[in-house]
Amino acid sequence: MLDLIIIGGGPAGLTAGLYATRGGLKEVIMFEMGIPGGQITGSSEIENYPGQGEIKSGMDFMENWPEQSMRFGLKKEQKKVLKVEKKEDNIFKVITEDKEEYLSRSVLIATGSVPKKAGFKGEKEFFGKGVSTCATCDGFFYKNKEVAVIGGGDTALEEAIYLSRICSKVYLIHRRDTYRAAPSTIEHMKKAKNIEEVTNVTIEEVYGDKMGVLGIKVKNKETNEIRDLKTPGVFTFVGRNVLNDSLKDEKGNFICEMNEMGEVIVDLNMKTSVPGLYAAGDIRINAAKQVVCAAGDGATAGVNIIEYLG
Amino acid sequence: MLDLIIIGGGPAGLTAGLYATRGGLKEVIMFEMGIPGGQITGSSEIENYPGQGEIKSGMDFMENWPEQSMRFGLKKEQKKVLKVEKKEDNIFKVITEDKEEYLSRSVLIATGSVPKKAGFKGEKEFFGKGVSTCATCDGFFYKNKEVAVIGGGDTALEEAIYLSRICSKVYLIHRRDTYRAAPSTIEHMKKAKNIEEVTNVTIEEVYGDKMGVLGIKVKNKETNEIRDLKTPGVFTFVGRNVLNDSLKDEKGNFICEMNEMGEVIVDLNMKTSVPGLYAAGDIRINAAKQVVCAAGDGATAGVNIIEYLG
Repeated sequence: MLDLIIIGGGPAGLTAGLYATRGGLKEVIMFEMGIPGGQITGSSEIENYPGQGEIKSGMDFMENWPEQSMRFGLKKEQKKVLKVEKKEDNIFKVITEDKEEYLSRSVLIATGSVPKKAGFKGEKEFFGKGVSTCATCDGFFYKNKEVAVIGGGDTALEEAIYLSRICSKVYLIHRRDTYRAAPSTIEHMKKAKNIEEVTNVTIEEVYGDKMGVLGIKVKNKETNEIRDLKTPGVFTFVGRNVLNDSLKDEKGNFICEMNEMGEVIVDLNMKTSVPGLYAAGDIRINAAKQVVCAAGDGATAGVNIIEYLG
Repeated sequence: MLDLIIIGGGPAGLTAGLYATRGGLKEVIMFEMGIPGGQITGSSEIENYPGQGEIKSGMDFMENWPEQSMRFGLKKEQKKVLKVEKKEDNIFKVITEDKEEYLSRSVLIATGSVPKKAGFKGEKEFFGKGVSTCATCDGFFYKNKEVAVIGGGDTALEEAIYLSRICSKVYLIHRRDTYRAAPSTIEHMKKAKNIEEVTNVTIEEVYGDKMGVLGIKVKNKETNEIRDLKTPGVFTFVGRNVLNDSLKDEKGNFICEMNEMGEVIVDLNMKTSVPGLYAAGDIRINAAKQVVCAAGDGATAGVNIIEYLG
């Protein structure tokens, strides 16, 4: 019988593991399919993690996290978790892809969520070299420069407004001429003087050179006219996949309360609606999707899980 | 007219300032009476901040935070804030000790809370050298050793339970023979086999040498018998002073909703009950009182304040 199973080895999972084991929990396993570190390891430049010292790539930045987290007894298994089941007596059964079953007195889900791909030419090639999915992370690198934002939902418009305060100009690129965003968000976006709406277009390509993005070509769906926007930054916000499959039961229903986007509802202690089940990082509601926030969540969850088990 | 006033320059305030200015807010002032860094600068050893690298003292640990936070335009004023007033049109007036008035469209309160002194001989002398007010922070340094916990409230008992999992033995020292804790917490404490209750005593002194604490002497209030407990760690939990004075109006009423301990009630976005007023770090409800949590709060507040002002 384990004390705690952590699903996901990004900043949230690693920090929870550090706090749980340093706080005296003996049997804690963290499941992570890949190398611990999370999405941030794909980032080319980080400068906003408090106390980090010099600016670093995501890989370099996360380099010493796993060692620090493992120092107090956290175990790691490189396996995919298929399912979390709540059994009687507040025990959880966690089933991995190789059909092994683990019993634990508590579970932390910290699998995160990943931005969806927009599907244009150059998206993959230039990801982290001009193509970004996070304005809070990367917007500042385009200070007083022009950028493009792709998308027509709430997040796309909010991020366009965010970028409009930092960048000289924001092209808001959307395939339709109506937005799926809240009316108040649309109104705010329209008030920003340096946001130009480029609607009813498809994306021909994002192009660049070895140094990164040089621009984006869009085609008007009615006139077929091609416009070449010479922006070094292209931000895509076309939705996120919340990695919550392991929380579904056999009928496809979630075992805890979620919001309409499939994010786990938590309180300030990272408690879900199921006693003993906690969530931290980008998988939870209202996540700011920043490393320091995910790490803070992990610490909060760790402290509260220890108290719960006590 | 300022965009944002941050009150307090610990991990929460500094991180909020970093995120707010890097996110494009131009007029942001952080008020901090002393040197930025917060309570953690008084800590002798930190090893649980994710990604920190080598173990550091609190002073060394916080050394590069202010520079990083100021890099994007955050201004600092070394002044005490007396009062935050909500004016019409969602504007705040912040009054400093020199009677100057600042107008701002938003305010973040991040003044924290400080542990109360228990008032025994040796408390100040050995603070950070064996006397601690944070089990999550320092408990691990006493792994498999004996420690003393001073206090009889919920926090004292919870922290004694926490320490009982790490330490070989915990003496729970309380001046009365009844506790002010919840019955379930008392029950959990009594179940822990390595917690010995030392009740109805006064503290004669905590003593030690240049290396730190060597023990604590307590006197039984009925028999006057003195007991010498040779514990290298003494944890005191006799309440906290929440630094919330600036949120009181002239009648002494708080301008936003607080809990019964005087902590600011926030949601997951660090929003208080007053639009435009945010709280982060140890002053808010349910704070885990860890640097990484306060920093995560600050980032969350920064991102949400930018959105609010947009």
